[in-house]
Amino acid sequence: MVIRVGVIGAGNIGTAHALNLARSVSGSAVSVVFDADQARADSLAADLGARSVGTAEEVLAAEDVDAVLIASPDGLHAGQALLALSAGKPVLCEKPLAVGEDEARAVLDAEVVLGQRLIQLGFMRRFDPGYVQLKQELSDDGIGDPLIVHNLHRNTSAPYGLRTEQTLTNMVTHEFDICRWLLDEEYTSVTVLAGRPGPLTPQGQHDPILVILQSVSGVLVEVEAFVNARFGYEVGCRVTGSLGQAVMGDATFVTRAKSFHRGVAVPELWLGRFAEAYRVQLQGWVDAVRAGGPYRGASAWDGYVAAVVSNRAIESYRTGQRVAVELPPRPALYA
Amino acid sequence: MVIRVGVIGAGNIGTAHALNLARSVSGSAVSVVFDADQARADSLAADLGARSVGTAEEVLAAEDVDAVLIASPDGLHAGQALLALSAGKPVLCEKPLAVGEDEARAVLDAEVVLGQRLIQLGFMRRFDPGYVQLKQELSDDGIGDPLIVHNLHRNTSAPYGLRTEQTLTNMVTHEFDICRWLLDEEYTSVTVLAGRPGPLTPQGQHDPILVILQSVSGVLVEVEAFVNARFGYEVGCRVTGSLGQAVMGDATFVTRAKSFHRGVAVPELWLGRFAEAYRVQLQGWVDAVRAGGPYRGASAWDGYVAAVVSNRAIESYRTGQRVAVELPPRPALYA
Amino acid sequence: MVIRVGVIGAGNIGTAHALNLARSVSGSAVSVVFDADQARADSLAADLGARSVGTAEEVLAAEDVDAVLIASPDGLHAGQALLALSAGKPVLCEKPLAVGEDEARAVLDAEVVLGQRLIQLGFMRRFDPGYVQLKQELSDDGIGDPLIVHNLHRNTSAPYGLRTEQTLTNMVTHEFDICRWLLDEEYTSVTVLAGRPGPLTPQGQHDPILVILQSVSGVLVEVEAFVNARFGYEVGCRVTGSLGQAVMGDATFVTRAKSFHRGVAVPELWLGRFAEAYRVQLQGWVDAVRAGGPYRGASAWDGYVAAVVSNRAIESYRTGQRVAVELPPRPALYA
Amino acid sequence: MVIRVGVIGAGNIGTAHALNLARSVSGSAVSVVFDADQARADSLAADLGARSVGTAEEVLAAEDVDAVLIASPDGLHAGQALLALSAGKPVLCEKPLAVGEDEARAVLDAEVVLGQRLIQLGFMRRFDPGYVQLKQELSDDGIGDPLIVHNLHRNTSAPYGLRTEQTLTNMVTHEFDICRWLLDEEYTSVTVLAGRPGPLTPQGQHDPILVILQSVSGVLVEVEAFVNARFGYEVGCRVTGSLGQAVMGDATFVTRAKSFHRGVAVPELWLGRFAEAYRVQLQGWVDAVRAGGPYRGASAWDGYVAAVVSNRAIESYRTGQRVAVELPPRPALYA
Repeated sequence: MVIRVGVIGAGNIGTAHALNLARSVSGSAVSVVFDADQARADSLAADLGARSVGTAEEVLAAEDVDAVLIASPDGLHAGQALLALSAGKPVLCEKPLAVGEDEARAVLDAEVVLGQRLIQLGFMRRFDPGYVQLKQELSDDGIGDPLIVHNLHRNTSAPYGLRTEQTLTNMVTHEFDICRWLLDEEYTSVTVLAGRPGPLTPQGQHDPILVILQSVSGVLVEVEAFVNARFGYEVGCRVTGSLGQAVMGDATFVTRAKSFHRGVAVPELWLGRFAEAYRVQLQGWVDAVRAGGPYRGASAWDGYVAAVVSNRAIESYRTGQRVAVELPPRPALYA
Repeated sequence: MVIRVGVIGAGNIGTAHALNLARSVSGSAVSVVFDADQARADSLAADLGARSVGTAEEVLAAEDVDAVLIASPDGLHAGQALLALSAGKPVLCEKPLAVGEDEARAVLDAEVVLGQRLIQLGFMRRFDPGYVQLKQELSDDGIGDPLIVHNLHRNTSAPYGLRTEQTLTNMVTHEFDICRWLLDEEYTSVTVLAGRPGPLTPQGQHDPILVILQSVSGVLVEVEAFVNARFGYEVGCRVTGSLGQAVMGDATFVTRAKSFHRGVAVPELWLGRFAEAYRVQLQGWVDAVRAGGPYRGASAWDGYVAAVVSNRAIESYRTGQRVAVELPPRPALYA
Repeated sequence: MVIRVGVIGAGNIGTAHALNLARSVSGSAVSVVFDADQARADSLAADLGARSVGTAEEVLAAEDVDAVLIASPDGLHAGQALLALSAGKPVLCEKPLAVGEDEARAVLDAEVVLGQRLIQLGFMRRFDPGYVQLKQELSDDGIGDPLIVHNLHRNTSAPYGLRTEQTLTNMVTHEFDICRWLLDEEYTSVTVLAGRPGPLTPQGQHDPILVILQSVSGVLVEVEAFVNARFGYEVGCRVTGSLGQAVMGDATFVTRAKSFHRGVAVPELWLGRFAEAYRVQLQGWVDAVRAGGPYRGASAWDGYVAAVVSNRAIESYRTGQRVAVELPPRPALYA
Repeated sequence: MVIRVGVIGAGNIGTAHALNLARSVSGSAVSVVFDADQARADSLAADLGARSVGTAEEVLAAEDVDAVLIASPDGLHAGQALLALSAGKPVLCEKPLAVGEDEARAVLDAEVVLGQRLIQLGFMRRFDPGYVQLKQELSDDGIGDPLIVHNLHRNTSAPYGLRTEQTLTNMVTHEFDICRWLLDEEYTSVTVLAGRPGPLTPQGQHDPILVILQSVSGVLVEVEAFVNARFGYEVGCRVTGSLGQAVMGDATFVTRAKSFHRGVAVPELWLGRFAEAYRVQLQGWVDAVRAGGPYRGASAWDGYVAAVVSNRAIESYRTGQRVAVELPPRPALYA
């Protein structure tokens, strides 16, 4: 059985997903494509032997669509996810689940009412070989119990312009999610510290920033985020544990020596670093759709928590104070 | 169109290929399985929703087989490849193409007479991200023209027992192929030097050994091969060029510090190091089968050359002398 | 002219200094040794062709002592430094300058009144090739202006037992000093965060801890300190700048692969990591003594600032709040 | 007692040694300097508070010279070493001991007749922390018994112009010595292979070259030498053993990421790589002179063997054949 996927949004990330589904994932095909830019949808559809339609609703309703991939602008995610729930179709929704906490809660509540998990959120790092290997270190065969986690996250430039609040909601949200997943527990507080701005930082904004979370068991989680790191894209995570220390960096095969310098290339963009994560995420999702679940990736609950933590981080950034993170009880559906 | 693959040989490598074709490659399925061990074939077939048959010939003749994967014992490769040519079916044949030079030549000649390339040889390193990146360095943007190539190849233990001649034909044959591919030229000579044997080397055999090839343009290619490297599996390649030097090693995401030691895990087996190469090789092959070619991987010509070089290496090992490598003109089919 | 050094304190660090002065530094000799443990002083003196005396005062007053090395217990540093000032003899004083802020201020004031710099403080990291190279990166030829500094500091076990306040005064004080030196500016605040305690942390104490400083220009300086890092001793510093990023780690010549692991040895003790820094510090001090100054190392002012910052850090640890760091104007003597 | 050293030769390396002796080594001073360029000798002498003289003989005969450092042109080493033996003064002689095998033998014989070791040869790698640590790996606690040794040696450009025979005598001679020292045994054969020349190689010369030695116990020792490695200076050594593998490379504290590249600086010149080795060698030599021996560094015997192996390597380069290395019995003086 080949899973016929309807793709909503044919921008950079939507196109990358669609190409993977059509050409690199076993058991899936792209059947229908929608994009607000009709020409872009037509072109992608033609490329993949799919058809294009004029609205997202048509994708969700199509008989030849078994599952839906949402890669539309952030503000549309929640509404489309709700429609997918109504249609009873599995959906892989790019992060964030919603731009606002309330909207995220609405989607969560709707899925809880439905009583069935249909939404997987595209926090692809959970499928990245680096993070997967790092998580495996958190045992007595590895580094023991985690005590402190240090992350670094650098972008070469901000796709969204340099607004510090978006650094938190669009960029650091990846660390909000992946560190919960690594530690397998929630946060109790978040603090955002704004340092000396870099030369490309607009007046009134801050970059780099330092975010400090604390987990229920007390683990300190730091994130050094820098949107305008002109040396290149980089993601790293170091977990210090009771028995040892594990550091996740890049995995690079080739080192070059030239012109009195020896080292490796640093990418300009993030897509290459997580290409394998994206493919494995999609293969796992297609496999789960075929099997009727379970979905191993991030859930609507995870998407909701990310929205809450992002909002508390914004509050801390605005006030300069540590802000408590309080969550409702986790619904049994996500146990 | 889904390519239905018939699998001949359900041992370790055949099973790995079959699982990839059924579960991780876009556009392929496994339809028929044969193995001399009927139970093993039955089990794999059941796992993949395929059927098993009693002979390799049945696989080749089956109407529901569009293409064939040969992963039988080495001595059967050539005969089965010839049958595939007769059946006009594309084949991905595990290396070696043949155990003997004459047999390899016979397959090559048959394909030349047929006038159509149907055989791809499973030298998977050509699809490995490490070697692909290394080859990209061989330009003026990288390290310039290659001048000297140093390889190291260590196995934890020899699957075939420790016969030095098999080190050349089964293990170093990978370097014979990949360095021709890197340099894009043939060899003119090969020398095998036998050093101090390790403690696990049987009487009369040699391990480690040092193999030195020279290419038409004069590039020296060294291979340090060690079958009983008890520290783990390792493959490396360093190319020194007119402008710089590129070193291909392992790509590892996680470094662990524990017990006064900091470093990375070294695998015991080769499969993990080349898991991505195997998958990409299969995806490329399936894509080429669907498109009716061209096949980007190693050809029957490449398989023939590997057989010739292996035999000259054995001769050098026996005599202690440098041995010339002479090849017939490359048929136009492989231009 | 050979500088005859009187050594006060023949414990581990005092003995290490004395051996260097006698055997590895050009232009110095050890002439007199004092230790509260007379036998220890006798033994070291005999070893080095020096004589031992019964009090620290005798060392300071001795005619055959041109300069003094203070390596006594921390609580005695300030008093002995004052005596050295009275005697008008150059002194290399192990850190800290004093255990209390007031005592440190008293020494500083005495030197200011004297109007001549005689005290060098043993913050040896300023002479470490790693930190020296790191500081050289802070220019437009390197990583540009520093924006954020991340340090890690791990000890295998606490020589002083595990009292968190001593982690700040004895261990993190090294980062207090070296980051001021790197940035060439003072701090405005310090915050200490206590995370999940490791399994070896006594009740009521905290380890690891996270210390965050901010400099006058806004640079955030983090220190992850861990006293009971059972994997080994480690010091690291990463500076992220406007143009790039520089990371100082260990410098290790030999990598070993064994038993399915490849990596480097992590030392158990700090002395080896800084052996070269200690030697270079002593050579530079002896050269300066011979030349009558100037002293390139840390000054009494630097020692005083370290005492102030340590005390504010303790206050932050106790209250859980960010604490301002306020300093008197820097005396002109230290311009 | 301060050892007063007479320095013969005030070129680059002679000056570096003299500065170390005067300023960085405990227990030594430079008293007399000679150089064929009188102005150069005067200048260095004035710098160090020494006097200059008009002939090498005057240095050797001077009453205020306890020991001699020979850093004259290669062709003068043997003659001056013989004079030093006559004068009964300890000498640290830069490599090579002599340009010809016979001359080297004459010095060796003279020292044997004298019955006392006075000559230490400046093979400074034996004091390099990297090689010292590598040698420590050759035990059951490390990598077990050595089986194969791979060296790489790159210079940015040849100080002597690019004559291949000098690559062997001036550059690879370091590996001839250090690998004997690592393995603690002699060579039985040497083979030199000339590969594809780099673009800067003069007509009729070869660069890079590959040198292969075999030791008495059968260990294969490879040296990849490249005089015009435009990417920088590099020395490396990998020993593969019965239990593991040890690789000696550079030790670098700081990694820099900038302009989409992350890595370390590669030096242009060799002096920095071995600065510590030079200092430790001199300190050890001065200590031994003060103690009346024993000398831990390379001996006249080691210098003689290096001359023999270099000559056999030249013979192999000229003939293209493997050449046997035969040595007289080692005199008891060097047991």
